Amino acid sequence: MKTNAPRPIESDLTGSDFDLSVDNVVFGFDGDQLQVLLIGLTGEDMRPEQFHMAIPGDLVKANEGLDEAAHRILSSLTSLKGVFLKQFYAFGAPDRVIEEKDREWLMRSRRYPKRRAVTVGYYSLVSIADYLPVASSFASKAEWCPLADIPPLTFDHNEIVAAGLERLRQDVAHHNIIFELLPEKFTLGQLQRLHEIILGKSLDKRNFRKNVKRMSEVVPLDEKQAGVLHKPAQLYTYKKSV
Amino acid sequence: MKTNAPRPIESDLTGSDFDLSVDNVVFGFDGDQLQVLLIGLTGEDMRPEQFHMAIPGDLVKANEGLDEAAHRILSSLTSLKGVFLKQFYAFGAPDRVIEEKDREWLMRSRRYPKRRAVTVGYYSLVSIADYLPVASSFASKAEWCPLADIPPLTFDHNEIVAAGLERLRQDVAHHNIIFELLPEKFTLGQLQRLHEIILGKSLDKRNFRKNVKRMSEVVPLDEKQAGVLHKPAQLYTYKKSV
Repeated sequence: MKTNAPRPIESDLTGSDFDLSVDNVVFGFDGDQLQVLLIGLTGEDMRPEQFHMAIPGDLVKANEGLDEAAHRILSSLTSLKGVFLKQFYAFGAPDRVIEEKDREWLMRSRRYPKRRAVTVGYYSLVSIADYLPVASSFASKAEWCPLADIPPLTFDHNEIVAAGLERLRQDVAHHNIIFELLPEKFTLGQLQRLHEIILGKSLDKRNFRKNVKRMSEVVPLDEKQAGVLHKPAQLYTYKKSV
Repeated sequence: MKTNAPRPIESDLTGSDFDLSVDNVVFGFDGDQLQVLLIGLTGEDMRPEQFHMAIPGDLVKANEGLDEAAHRILSSLTSLKGVFLKQFYAFGAPDRVIEEKDREWLMRSRRYPKRRAVTVGYYSLVSIADYLPVASSFASKAEWCPLADIPPLTFDHNEIVAAGLERLRQDVAHHNIIFELLPEKFTLGQLQRLHEIILGKSLDKRNFRKNVKRMSEVVPLDEKQAGVLHKPAQLYTYKKSV
């Protein structure tokens, strides 16, 4: 061990230049498409060109953990509670909240609207049939939007959505999280379609079913689809193994 | 679109309560073991019980991106430059830097030593033979430590190391990043051992070699190990596919 260890240097950063937020990419599956939950950022006296869509996010409170903040904020803006949430990446480009188009909203909603903001991205997985988003707090609306139709969002939220999808693609290979996107009862067709959307490629039906048959957690029910025009398919459910 | 959109509410957070830092889990492979690069946090007038080991990390500067900060800080504390670095998780427990044991060092090195600090974790992969860590800035030393021998570290750094390893384990299944840990020329025995350490399980030698043979990026060299007591093994190199 060195005895003439250097005296620690004073940091050259005040640390007071950051806001910390979390942003939630909420993926929902409706049995056919993957959708993302968007909120409207509007003020009553905002002009239409100042209207923006965003993913649900806000500043972290002083004594709050990051996961805790993600749950609170999602619930306060969209009413979604108790959903699967997973942190995936921190976004900290120095210029991520300085665009003119985002200025108006920041001016009216942030105490320090010019401050650099670092945001921690979470993704969430829900079955659309099981959750009804209801806008509240500063969200003027909360709506599902198909992944392919997402408009230009506020700040760097388009980039956050893309990164969340990329991470989801990686994570489904390791974890059974994909079942979070399905209702309690689902068909193998829906399960395959969901895999295909997330992985971005089509899968061979026979091989897919062979692989699913090997999963003891996917249990056939004594029940078939109801209210469909085509031949009703067998329903399955997912039972977590212990 | 609703016309009576609510006026955005004022946030209840000042945003001035956070420090933002990055911390680097640098994994190194010496051909036999996986090691982690640790630095010593010592001041010339610190008592031995105040001496702490840590992973290299520091505060992010006001105009600096997160990746940029990770590279700068690693280089300034350990002299490692141009290495593979990947962000993996943000650690933001409200109490992560408040332990008494860490107080002394914070008091002497931070402008706001009592401020909550959120840190963005990166992991880095290097071949130990190719990099010589040299302590500088506030690091009193910079040394490799075998994964199994890591002492209690400052703050939540043990947790960050464990999370980094877990993420590395997941990432090696998708990317050829494992070759970042090997020297330019390596044996298949080293490659297998490295996989086994990261995955935490032993692999069948014949299957492993069969799988490696299928990788066009792993190229046999017209060269064998030198200076070993056992029968010298064939050397290979990794060529990124284009």
